[in-house]
Amino acid sequence: MRVELINTGSELLLGRVLNTHQQWIGQQLAGVGYELAIQQTIPDTESSIEVAVSEAIERSELVIVTGGLGPTGDDMTRQRIAELLEVSLVDHQETRDRIISHFQKRNRPMPESVMVQAQVLEGSTVLPNEYGTAPGLAVSTSKGWLILLPGPPRELRPMYTAYVAPFLAKELPPRRKMVTRTIKTMGIGESTVEELISQELSEFLAQGLEVGYCARVGEVDVRMVAYGSSGPRLIKESETIVRQCLKEYVFGADEDRLEDFIVCGLIERNQTLVVAESCTGGYLSHRITNVSGSSAVFPAGHCVYSNESKESILGVSKIALEKGAVSQSVAREMADRVRLLHKADYALATTGIAGPTGGTEEKPVGTVYIGISTAQGTRVIKECNRCDRETFKYVTSQQALNLLRREWYKKARH
Amino acid sequence: MRVELINTGSELLLGRVLNTHQQWIGQQLAGVGYELAIQQTIPDTESSIEVAVSEAIERSELVIVTGGLGPTGDDMTRQRIAELLEVSLVDHQETRDRIISHFQKRNRPMPESVMVQAQVLEGSTVLPNEYGTAPGLAVSTSKGWLILLPGPPRELRPMYTAYVAPFLAKELPPRRKMVTRTIKTMGIGESTVEELISQELSEFLAQGLEVGYCARVGEVDVRMVAYGSSGPRLIKESETIVRQCLKEYVFGADEDRLEDFIVCGLIERNQTLVVAESCTGGYLSHRITNVSGSSAVFPAGHCVYSNESKESILGVSKIALEKGAVSQSVAREMADRVRLLHKADYALATTGIAGPTGGTEEKPVGTVYIGISTAQGTRVIKECNRCDRETFKYVTSQQALNLLRREWYKKARH
Repeated sequence: MRVELINTGSELLLGRVLNTHQQWIGQQLAGVGYELAIQQTIPDTESSIEVAVSEAIERSELVIVTGGLGPTGDDMTRQRIAELLEVSLVDHQETRDRIISHFQKRNRPMPESVMVQAQVLEGSTVLPNEYGTAPGLAVSTSKGWLILLPGPPRELRPMYTAYVAPFLAKELPPRRKMVTRTIKTMGIGESTVEELISQELSEFLAQGLEVGYCARVGEVDVRMVAYGSSGPRLIKESETIVRQCLKEYVFGADEDRLEDFIVCGLIERNQTLVVAESCTGGYLSHRITNVSGSSAVFPAGHCVYSNESKESILGVSKIALEKGAVSQSVAREMADRVRLLHKADYALATTGIAGPTGGTEEKPVGTVYIGISTAQGTRVIKECNRCDRETFKYVTSQQALNLLRREWYKKARH
Repeated sequence: MRVELINTGSELLLGRVLNTHQQWIGQQLAGVGYELAIQQTIPDTESSIEVAVSEAIERSELVIVTGGLGPTGDDMTRQRIAELLEVSLVDHQETRDRIISHFQKRNRPMPESVMVQAQVLEGSTVLPNEYGTAPGLAVSTSKGWLILLPGPPRELRPMYTAYVAPFLAKELPPRRKMVTRTIKTMGIGESTVEELISQELSEFLAQGLEVGYCARVGEVDVRMVAYGSSGPRLIKESETIVRQCLKEYVFGADEDRLEDFIVCGLIERNQTLVVAESCTGGYLSHRITNVSGSSAVFPAGHCVYSNESKESILGVSKIALEKGAVSQSVAREMADRVRLLHKADYALATTGIAGPTGGTEEKPVGTVYIGISTAQGTRVIKECNRCDRETFKYVTSQQALNLLRREWYKKARH
């Protein structure tokens, strides 16, 4: 079964907005065994929509189109597709009522123009929008189904989950089972990963296992895909081998993020973590608190950006700060002090030069000291992360969380 | 001139990785007047690469392909395109030397497989990779140029800036000037924005101005595009009108983020801001410290996630906390106390229920109190942001920063 995704929106092509639909919808589809054959982004012009959609419905059983269903003048997907399929647009009373109630609930005036969104393709299945005004539409085509969804992710995602997924399971169930598994590693290069596992996997590759590698910032993903009834077994056995070959470099699988691993590990151990951040500026706290349930194991994080706050809040010594806030001794004191301040089991601390300015010959932009404090002692590592400010914060926070992960790994081996 | 972007990578279609190339390359192109006609993502298979690239080079003057240049078995772009264009792959000594030095500098063993990256298309222009091993390649086609770039963003971006942009300016300068400008608004709906400005812009629309609207989480963008020699004037005059019509709802333009506006405003006023976060969990600090220069105006931020830390660090009263940490009085005390603690000019505080668990009938998931404290007094607003955990943090931080923005706006009007 061929599946295509078409994202409409000139703002996407001009780079004004990041296209997150491809990733999110790709994940939803792959999770139940549909494979996206191609994704396209096209401008909000009538001719682009016509060309892309007419080609796609000719060659694919399932075509999902996002965007262009809103109330403004540049929203022309609904109208254009009605013309293309030669069906009329008809007023949909239930949608009309929903739109009125949407504005009433928010106590906002309702502009006349919004009612264009109550026009639906005749004969289509209307997919209600619980977080906005434009409904989605499912239209039957000669080969299968064309699904139109609104552009804003916070409208599209709940609509997909509540209405599109069950609709597809019923009307267009995937023909071939697909199983995917991604093993996530840190601290090892892409070529080395392949060298360590490809020989060991050769038997499974011969049986149809597909393996791909993806180098990300500070991480390498090993992606495995298998089909049919032997798929689950192939994936399971391959995963065991990959984990055996890559040992401590593996930190998770699929959607796992390092912060999930850390928070789950803390919950399991019934221990707590606090952080004191300078150069990561709150990002470490942000990543930890992105994990639901973190409040039980993360009492506090301090972004002590100025020297005064390092001293007044944590009690870092003036002498150490005067010698240089970006230093091994300040990282050590930050980690120690913040752990004692909250009587926590672990503390992480970061101090460095995120850039783009502030570097010196001795300590160039990217220099960072990362400390970990536990009841057993304190350890500081020095790294040099030469990249833009936001990537710097990401890589540094990753290295910090990895210090705690390796602490646990070491302990488990003893 | 027609320009296309092709992103290869099954990991993108499976949703394992977010495709950020479309946005970033789209911005680079638009900034100098190239308009992306279409972007496609295709799998790492030989046939997909062949079909997409051969169609694209037939119809477009500039085709940019990302990904598939790495050292692992699923990297087949280079080989496939050599076959498609019927040119040989030849060894490139300079690249070979660069790869060797890349591994030497990092003190890492060099797997044999990496040397496939020193194979380049005969007659192509080699674009050096200063942050990785696979070079980019520019190949002449019957209509113009085909540019192959490595997939990892931190390799692709510096390569684009240093080599691709100057190469295009020389070999394929844009034929028609394009000017774009995006005005960013908050606190107003998409339809209302259009209602307020479309009539006022009609004269410019008749002269060729194109206007698009994009509803984002808590924001609406007004995107204007104009072409040719009158473009700059059209955009300038339209921007004046849009700003007049939308008044305080406008918070910036183009790449401006609310945090840039806030940090610049603080620097101009020579004032400081501190934050005390509960439900936003460090995200407010993270956004502020993403702005280079923020260290001069942002001494500290505290993520006081537990009740104990709200009390011990900030001195929030036990009585208020016992009545409920998610409350107007706790938000007020947090804002007041953190401002006094650091003798700052402004303080922002958040306390709420990010979800997905923790809601009650009286205070459902999404409930949040946001406080702002200034020398003139303290104000707390209540919002209900019903969305996933990370969107909740974003919207809440946006509302918090907006409180300070409106404080300044009010003052300026008096």
